Amino acid sequence: MGRWMPDAGERLERAAFELFAEQGFAETTVPQIAERAGLTTRSFFRYYSDKREVLFGFDEHLPEIIAGIMAEADPTLSPMDVIRQSLDTVATTQLAGQLDYLLAHRQIVDSDDGLRERSLRKQAIMTEAIEQGFRQRGLPDLTATLSAHLAVAVFAVSVDRWLELRGERPLTELVHEALDSVRAVASGSLGQ
Amino acid sequence: MGRWMPDAGERLERAAFELFAEQGFAETTVPQIAERAGLTTRSFFRYYSDKREVLFGFDEHLPEIIAGIMAEADPTLSPMDVIRQSLDTVATTQLAGQLDYLLAHRQIVDSDDGLRERSLRKQAIMTEAIEQGFRQRGLPDLTATLSAHLAVAVFAVSVDRWLELRGERPLTELVHEALDSVRAVASGSLGQ
Repeated sequence: MGRWMPDAGERLERAAFELFAEQGFAETTVPQIAERAGLTTRSFFRYYSDKREVLFGFDEHLPEIIAGIMAEADPTLSPMDVIRQSLDTVATTQLAGQLDYLLAHRQIVDSDDGLRERSLRKQAIMTEAIEQGFRQRGLPDLTATLSAHLAVAVFAVSVDRWLELRGERPLTELVHEALDSVRAVASGSLGQ
Repeated sequence: MGRWMPDAGERLERAAFELFAEQGFAETTVPQIAERAGLTTRSFFRYYSDKREVLFGFDEHLPEIIAGIMAEADPTLSPMDVIRQSLDTVATTQLAGQLDYLLAHRQIVDSDDGLRERSLRKQAIMTEAIEQGFRQRGLPDLTATLSAHLAVAVFAVSVDRWLELRGERPLTELVHEALDSVRAVASGSLGQ
């Protein structure tokens, strides 16, 4: 116990997910998580500031990841093509192989109102980072903001569908379908 | 005190807004709000379940209001035209004359992380109601969901700008500008 272990963070995460699923998020305590992981409470706090952090701690890396992905897109690409290419990159490099993790995560978040509110903040963090990325590509404020909202909506809706379908269809395919749908709606080509 | 007063709810709201602005949301208590309004704490709880409700209580009416507005739109209109017409209705009937109220509301919400999260939930409630409205107009799920996200993004971004400009430009004009921008982005007609 308490000695240095390379995978302690992961073990704590797995233990927390198990306990949240078994007995509920509200009912789970940090000492219980630490015990299940075979670690001390003190070790827990070396990795996470609280139990909510186990679910959302990764969010702090999102702005940097998003900035990196958007900076790689060719400067001549249109905003829609930047969105398409960036979401493809996220789907294939960040989310591929994460289906089981995301399904477990979603189930926990959906079980608690406070966690659901917190996950909306994640979308706001992403929107802000993408907006910033578009500004740095020289887009005017209004276009940058709306493009960012559009990107996050397409991403969130596609991930929702991917999870509902339990990965039956590739995420990139669902992203492209959503982008096509947005294009059809916005162009007005879609009647009733 | 405590006797029936037709404007007690409004007086409580005004008192709460004043106190939130003067001393902060976290520092303000329900007894303080009631006292400022010249009412009892008990009267407060006849109108609101807690102090957060003073800011967000109206949200519960949103689904019904949105459903009513969308039901009025001609069945042959495209989703973008439904969005345009519905947001025009909201801007002219619901928000016109509310600029000062909304500026005060925004200032309070922006001062507190918890309130900011709560206001994200308001957007989620709106998105769900609009999605439902589009489903009832016969749109397929994916299109209904994305159209709803698009409508809420356009609305939220336009209200943000309206408040930043302190009403210098009409909200409907900002909504149309945002819709034109979305159309340009989504159609890919907008290069760098």
